[in-house]
Amino acid sequence: MSKTTELTLAALAEQLDAELQGDPDYLIRGLAPLAEAKPDQLSFLSNPQYRPQLDTSHAGAVILHPDMAEHFNGNKLLLENPYLGFARLSHRFDQQPIPVKGIHPSARVAEEAQVDPSAAIAAGAVIEAGAIIEADCIVGANAVIGAYCHLGAGTHVYPNATLYHNVRTGQRCLIHANSVIGGDGFGFAHTGQAWEKIAQLGGVVLGDDVEVGACTSIDRGALGDTIIGNDVKIDSQVQIAHNVKIGDHSALAGCVGIAGSTQVGQYCMLGGGVGLSGHLHITDGVQITGMSLVTGSIEERGIYSSGTGAMPNKAWRKNAVRFKQLDDMARRLRQLERQLQQLEGHTQES
Amino acid sequence: MSKTTELTLAALAEQLDAELQGDPDYLIRGLAPLAEAKPDQLSFLSNPQYRPQLDTSHAGAVILHPDMAEHFNGNKLLLENPYLGFARLSHRFDQQPIPVKGIHPSARVAEEAQVDPSAAIAAGAVIEAGAIIEADCIVGANAVIGAYCHLGAGTHVYPNATLYHNVRTGQRCLIHANSVIGGDGFGFAHTGQAWEKIAQLGGVVLGDDVEVGACTSIDRGALGDTIIGNDVKIDSQVQIAHNVKIGDHSALAGCVGIAGSTQVGQYCMLGGGVGLSGHLHITDGVQITGMSLVTGSIEERGIYSSGTGAMPNKAWRKNAVRFKQLDDMARRLRQLERQLQQLEGHTQES
Amino acid sequence: MSKTTELTLAALAEQLDAELQGDPDYLIRGLAPLAEAKPDQLSFLSNPQYRPQLDTSHAGAVILHPDMAEHFNGNKLLLENPYLGFARLSHRFDQQPIPVKGIHPSARVAEEAQVDPSAAIAAGAVIEAGAIIEADCIVGANAVIGAYCHLGAGTHVYPNATLYHNVRTGQRCLIHANSVIGGDGFGFAHTGQAWEKIAQLGGVVLGDDVEVGACTSIDRGALGDTIIGNDVKIDSQVQIAHNVKIGDHSALAGCVGIAGSTQVGQYCMLGGGVGLSGHLHITDGVQITGMSLVTGSIEERGIYSSGTGAMPNKAWRKNAVRFKQLDDMARRLRQLERQLQQLEGHTQES
Repeated sequence: MSKTTELTLAALAEQLDAELQGDPDYLIRGLAPLAEAKPDQLSFLSNPQYRPQLDTSHAGAVILHPDMAEHFNGNKLLLENPYLGFARLSHRFDQQPIPVKGIHPSARVAEEAQVDPSAAIAAGAVIEAGAIIEADCIVGANAVIGAYCHLGAGTHVYPNATLYHNVRTGQRCLIHANSVIGGDGFGFAHTGQAWEKIAQLGGVVLGDDVEVGACTSIDRGALGDTIIGNDVKIDSQVQIAHNVKIGDHSALAGCVGIAGSTQVGQYCMLGGGVGLSGHLHITDGVQITGMSLVTGSIEERGIYSSGTGAMPNKAWRKNAVRFKQLDDMARRLRQLERQLQQLEGHTQES
Repeated sequence: MSKTTELTLAALAEQLDAELQGDPDYLIRGLAPLAEAKPDQLSFLSNPQYRPQLDTSHAGAVILHPDMAEHFNGNKLLLENPYLGFARLSHRFDQQPIPVKGIHPSARVAEEAQVDPSAAIAAGAVIEAGAIIEADCIVGANAVIGAYCHLGAGTHVYPNATLYHNVRTGQRCLIHANSVIGGDGFGFAHTGQAWEKIAQLGGVVLGDDVEVGACTSIDRGALGDTIIGNDVKIDSQVQIAHNVKIGDHSALAGCVGIAGSTQVGQYCMLGGGVGLSGHLHITDGVQITGMSLVTGSIEERGIYSSGTGAMPNKAWRKNAVRFKQLDDMARRLRQLERQLQQLEGHTQES
Repeated sequence: MSKTTELTLAALAEQLDAELQGDPDYLIRGLAPLAEAKPDQLSFLSNPQYRPQLDTSHAGAVILHPDMAEHFNGNKLLLENPYLGFARLSHRFDQQPIPVKGIHPSARVAEEAQVDPSAAIAAGAVIEAGAIIEADCIVGANAVIGAYCHLGAGTHVYPNATLYHNVRTGQRCLIHANSVIGGDGFGFAHTGQAWEKIAQLGGVVLGDDVEVGACTSIDRGALGDTIIGNDVKIDSQVQIAHNVKIGDHSALAGCVGIAGSTQVGQYCMLGGGVGLSGHLHITDGVQITGMSLVTGSIEERGIYSSGTGAMPNKAWRKNAVRFKQLDDMARRLRQLERQLQQLEGHTQES
């Protein structure tokens, strides 16, 4: 394990521009949830529901909203958005090794590639001809950056990730291990007997501050580019097909699949396993809950869902069978209503 | 960006054996959809629904069905299947770098492997003992070809893909980046207390012209091989379990999962996220729409579906709760029908 | 193809401690199912349903439960659990190449890493500073083992897999190709305008005998570790989010997705494509069938399911539309019941 970080509360408060109440020289060596924090750890209270944990927490200090200050007697950092403060401090305690700048002797960088001297190219990485790697980029071990790619400053490509040719990233993107950006879109014409591949001539463009999870794939465009907006966060095991467009600040949880040419707006959130058909338009601010199937465009912001939740198998079997009779049931229900109406008329007459 | 391709309309018409109406020397520098094409780009009209775009398109030339010729005044290539023509020409404009033949000095090829001199083995690729790499194959950077694999002529394995030992491909296969072919099937016996692994003794056999998307996994057989037929197209993020068989010309969209020993026929199409249980038989010509769950064999060609589409969350919550009451509702409906029948009898009598 | 294994029935019986009836010197060169086995192959009968195959099988020998002995005239190995016996013998016929011990010259092992001399580090593998690789470990070609990782004795990491820093495995783990262990969990705070990344400070801990399939991702914890128990078997294309805990002996089939902080008990089995929401608790012994959506905790052991099976598209369209009317149907049904009750009262009075 690498060396532990030690920071004074004063230093942490200064970074957050937070009001410090307590001992400015108190040393913090890590972060932890309220219920698990030790005396050398900093915690935070974001959800008021956890307020009772303040009474029993052993945290050495807590980040709190000013309104909550009175509920904790120990060291505290007061901040409007404690969770955001926690997020910002988290990077101070990150033990992720900082790579050595420069090109590892075992990395293979094509002569025609441009690598900024401040970039770190790890062992076994391959940078192909015409690629441009800007300042402070990190390319992890055995990652492959294809020809004519362009990595914006501060972008980090993790080990074994693959960028095909002509992929552009903005600044400060994170592309996690074993992800693939720019693989061929799934495009074929049919001769009547067999499939004829359509060359995928477009590229992929990522905005600034895009994060791409592990084992995620983003296909290159067929004609024109696949486009991922600024600050888009994509989790692991996600599939984004050719010519998809994702608007700024949207977030896609794990196992999402988006078919070709679909456009997702800004500030959208797709839950885990959501599937979007191709050629749809999803407007800004749409949230879709986990494992929903979306086969039509969504033009109104809001929360959308599909599917049914798990239940004991025995009950499920009975209900699932009935699903196949649902249209029949609806027709019979309508028929009953008609009959009953007639009958009521008849009875009232009688 | 690499150099742009320039081709005359005459050359393109000749390749397609299409009738050229217009200027044979007109230079085409790319392909684009009708609505976006510029004067140096070629477009196509396949779906008659887009015919009005012919009037406003700036395309330098358009591939058209002969019946549509009169609707476009500019340069045109007349062809029975314009989309197929577009597919065939697309490869002329592909900027994918052509790799250098031969073995890169940093590739590690086992002495007992056979690599055809026309093959290109990129930086960092590993070819293990007993592997055979036929003519015109490409093995991308840092890809790993296991012992006793056999790559048919013209097969392209993209960077960071992994083939375990004893995987055979036909000719002209494309295996995209970070895919895995021949990983262990998921097979265990239970001791009563713990799992006992079953060694996966089979291999994987791909036919000719198979395409495997990025981050896709195809497991080796337990006993006997996993078999993917000729011209099968598999998208990204797909999981194919041990001893699955896929018939010729079938296509599997992204995120499909197929459990062990299931057989899919020829000319089938599985939509994104479809899941097939194990030991099923799906006959030829079956189409299954996105995210369907298939737990039984399908013996009749046609289109199949399951699931429910997304709706506003508030309405969904109400409906999803009712799903759990569906069997109860069906019984009550039947009961009402009986009661009403009795009552009608009674009323008519009265 | 590598050399075939030959073993006498006596040797196989001895390994299993099984009663051998037949020729102890009979040579077995492989395993096969009853229906396909050749005279030099060993088969087994586990499911009594296949008993008729004993009559026609060409297997050179069969593993049988003692109660079944009379039904087969050829060579036989008698054992309480034939399938388990088959599992144990399967490894004898495995043609997976045995890697050469030691560090391949093209592997890059950091000076500060400790690699046991009995370990095999393949071509192009990267072992970062502070990593510990215990006895008999195998690290496949181009795999990357991050800083301060610890691989327990006998662990096998397949080609192109990536372990981020601070990942610990128990003994005899199998981590298949292109999997990623320890990638960042998906954690962000929101500033109101944009996402603020939360550094993922925890690690991942795997117990003994854990198997992780190809292209699977297991995220590191945000605070504290993601924990996979002993003998947990995870298939391919699975996503396990930060701070998930999986109990001993549980098995997760392909394409499963588990959201953050969810705890799965011991001896659970999740079918292919199952999705679990975050912060759930699934008790011991729970089985969940394929593609089920689980949004609430499950506190009682048993089998659980959701979703609906595929049906012909035309019928499905009608039924799926009705799903959106289900709450309305339920209300109308209730209303009919009330009306009918009134009417029956009325009719009986009349």
